[in-house]
Amino acid sequence: MPKRTGKKTILFEKPPSIISSGSVAGKKEGEGPLAPYFDTIMKESRMGQPSWEKAERLMQKNSAQKALEKAGLAFSDIDYIFAGDLLNQCVSSSYAFREYDVSFFGLYGACSTIAESLCLAAVFAESGAAKNCLCATSSHFCSAERQFRFPLEYGGQLTPTSQWTATAAGAFIVSSSGAAPFVRAATVGAIEDLGIKDINNMGAAMAPAAAKTIGNFLADTKTKPSDYDLILSGDLGKVGSDMLLQLLKREGVDISQNHNDCGLILFDESQEVNAGASGAGCSAAVLASYIMPKLKSGELGDILFVATGALMSTLTVQQGESIPCIAHLVRLSHGLL
Amino acid sequence: MPKRTGKKTILFEKPPSIISSGSVAGKKEGEGPLAPYFDTIMKESRMGQPSWEKAERLMQKNSAQKALEKAGLAFSDIDYIFAGDLLNQCVSSSYAFREYDVSFFGLYGACSTIAESLCLAAVFAESGAAKNCLCATSSHFCSAERQFRFPLEYGGQLTPTSQWTATAAGAFIVSSSGAAPFVRAATVGAIEDLGIKDINNMGAAMAPAAAKTIGNFLADTKTKPSDYDLILSGDLGKVGSDMLLQLLKREGVDISQNHNDCGLILFDESQEVNAGASGAGCSAAVLASYIMPKLKSGELGDILFVATGALMSTLTVQQGESIPCIAHLVRLSHGLL
Repeated sequence: MPKRTGKKTILFEKPPSIISSGSVAGKKEGEGPLAPYFDTIMKESRMGQPSWEKAERLMQKNSAQKALEKAGLAFSDIDYIFAGDLLNQCVSSSYAFREYDVSFFGLYGACSTIAESLCLAAVFAESGAAKNCLCATSSHFCSAERQFRFPLEYGGQLTPTSQWTATAAGAFIVSSSGAAPFVRAATVGAIEDLGIKDINNMGAAMAPAAAKTIGNFLADTKTKPSDYDLILSGDLGKVGSDMLLQLLKREGVDISQNHNDCGLILFDESQEVNAGASGAGCSAAVLASYIMPKLKSGELGDILFVATGALMSTLTVQQGESIPCIAHLVRLSHGLL
Repeated sequence: MPKRTGKKTILFEKPPSIISSGSVAGKKEGEGPLAPYFDTIMKESRMGQPSWEKAERLMQKNSAQKALEKAGLAFSDIDYIFAGDLLNQCVSSSYAFREYDVSFFGLYGACSTIAESLCLAAVFAESGAAKNCLCATSSHFCSAERQFRFPLEYGGQLTPTSQWTATAAGAFIVSSSGAAPFVRAATVGAIEDLGIKDINNMGAAMAPAAAKTIGNFLADTKTKPSDYDLILSGDLGKVGSDMLLQLLKREGVDISQNHNDCGLILFDESQEVNAGASGAGCSAAVLASYIMPKLKSGELGDILFVATGALMSTLTVQQGESIPCIAHLVRLSHGLL
């Protein structure tokens, strides 16, 4: 059964398995270093749909279908869907899954959504409430840009600290039994707001949330960074990753030897994405495509996946508010020892 | 432990307790029939804040504080917050709780949010993942109206089938142990979209989701409507309630003798709210203020609370899409037999 330890961590005594994952990447993402790992790479940004929003929900649905296909399951085998995305009212997720008769929990965790969904699915799977859960999220550069920033036609300039919203989707099947990788533990983040108001510097806004959640996990489990093969933050980019390392160092925790960030992996430097990638689909697709096979094979034995989210809206920014952020962590392992 | 039965229902073998609840109502809501039951009635729509959005988050926070106070608990006693609301990126919830160091799950279930949060909290509380969970949501007529419809200054006309977004907030503490009422079972809804596109007739859009979830629960548990003292839908209003009764009747299920709807209870007819009340805060505040004491005392022995949500956004409406809806059900009982 799920068992709480320390301040904020759940240990899974019979760890649920992530039996499969699926990923869809945009054209630009498919020209980056992870190209060989994605299940599907879009040929163009609309996928034949009349709008970017309709394309985004199709990406999310396709990533789920791919995960199901690899697991040899159908939607009718899924007990719960845990899904959300960046668009207002999370419409990518609700429209993606409206045709399936599956119990649906809508989530909003911004770019932390996939980690939030994995935490919830793992508790459901271990507790007996579910056998199979589907976790899914997505983001689309064009739909996000016009919702959160400017119409694309305006040609808005990005600042050097800004991150590029990935066009990507990732989905996972979490089951009460199965093979590696396993969800061994989860640390659910609290909201952290240190007063950053620069909407073009999400990395700086989110880094304190990541530092806090990682710090809580290590303290709760009495483990140290070197116990893990990888501490993978979700979408802090260059600026935020530097800050994360500094913030933890102040607390006497050095993760510099085993830290990486999904926002730094998705694109290479020639792709002009300023401080790196972001978007709910970024960490989901990087985990689903590049990391999952390594956890399955044992090339990665034990990792911490920490997805971060910035919880502001355009309206709170216009009203002069700072940016509350959150980070959720899951420990994913090849083995059970 | 949580145990699945039938297609979509979870039975709680050691049912979690809702140990307390808190409610905040707007001025108009406080002039209605439930006036004696609310913990707090706002004197004016801004609560001294510079914007309606800031007032809304304060309402949500106040309802949570009230629930904690009644339970003799502090935020530091809460293991998880499950919260969401109608505003883009669910900012009422994330800003309301950003100052507390409590693990936070952001939800989006539109007006079904409080039922979604109760389902999740009950699974967490029974499984051992949590001792105390806080569930909260809110809505504000003015913030919702300008986000989803028109600037208030425009004086947009409401159609007869439209519902009035309640200015209200409700919060609940769900605990692994405690006194009545208990969460005995939950049926988590699947998304249902029968093609309704009229944004001014949410009742009609949401009724099929409510009918499906109620039908699933009764079939899964092999019970009948007369086994319950009340089947309380959340915010179908007049039009949707009539449709719900008709839809279930077609399936041979007659709930007419024990059905009521939060959207019909919150205001009286003289208050000119067209087809009734709606908004995430409506069902949450009605349950928290009016229903909870009756469940506690045993005046109501066993009820089904079914909150419904419409999951569209202004953008999906503008793009000509129909409205996907959802309904989540919790069975709440005074006793455990």
